[in-house]
Amino acid sequence: MPDYDGQNIFAKILRGEIPSVKVYEDAETYCFMDIMPRADGHCLVIPKTPCRNMLDATPAQLSACMATVNKVANACVTGFAADGITLQQFNEAAGGQEVFHLHFHILPRHEGVSLRAPGKMGDMEAIKAHSEVIAAALAA
Amino acid sequence: MPDYDGQNIFAKILRGEIPSVKVYEDAETYCFMDIMPRADGHCLVIPKTPCRNMLDATPAQLSACMATVNKVANACVTGFAADGITLQQFNEAAGGQEVFHLHFHILPRHEGVSLRAPGKMGDMEAIKAHSEVIAAALAA
Repeated sequence: MPDYDGQNIFAKILRGEIPSVKVYEDAETYCFMDIMPRADGHCLVIPKTPCRNMLDATPAQLSACMATVNKVANACVTGFAADGITLQQFNEAAGGQEVFHLHFHILPRHEGVSLRAPGKMGDMEAIKAHSEVIAAALAA
Repeated sequence: MPDYDGQNIFAKILRGEIPSVKVYEDAETYCFMDIMPRADGHCLVIPKTPCRNMLDATPAQLSACMATVNKVANACVTGFAADGITLQQFNEAAGGQEVFHLHFHILPRHEGVSLRAPGKMGDMEAIKAHSEVIAAALAA
């Protein structure tokens, strides 16, 4: 597996070099909206410390991410009255990974609604509105 | 979210009431082969203690599962010379969940090879052989 590349876009987001729509953060993790959402509320949880993906992540990085995934996913259920959550995590290109900093996809789901096709930019106003729904549920 | 149902098939597997093809276990987690594999080596990691899915899991259950996911996924990379790993975890029926005991799907991936369609029983001899590949890589 190649080494971690500090120029990946999530590393740039963590350093504030490029913008992101924040949902939540704590000392060890950051959660922000996916700009190509496959469902309303589609967001990503990443560790603040470097690792390429789950394969080279430490137990501490994985634990911290999953604690945040649990928190944000429950807020999505509340905020969007979601019927379920699909969690995806991709490792290396063959595994579906496109950005090489560990990330977990949280996809709020509703009965009878399929995921949208990947790779299509979302509407930024809608994405911001969805981030506020999750943040409000987290604060409640 | 409904309560945990102790009659789900993974609870029965944990109690030894129905068989499974074991890959690995430790004090807190159990890993066994999916009998409807979407990729060679497709296996599942579950906590030994009850929880319905990620939404009601404790931080300790999630941490223990992810430590085992990391271990088994790396063994899959070694054992199958996999190019990547896709990790999936489904919550409630709308999220894709079919058995209501928390489980993580580990899917070894190779460049250019798509996942097989879900819901088709695999060949048990091949599944057993794949479990042995992973176990051997874990023991190495």
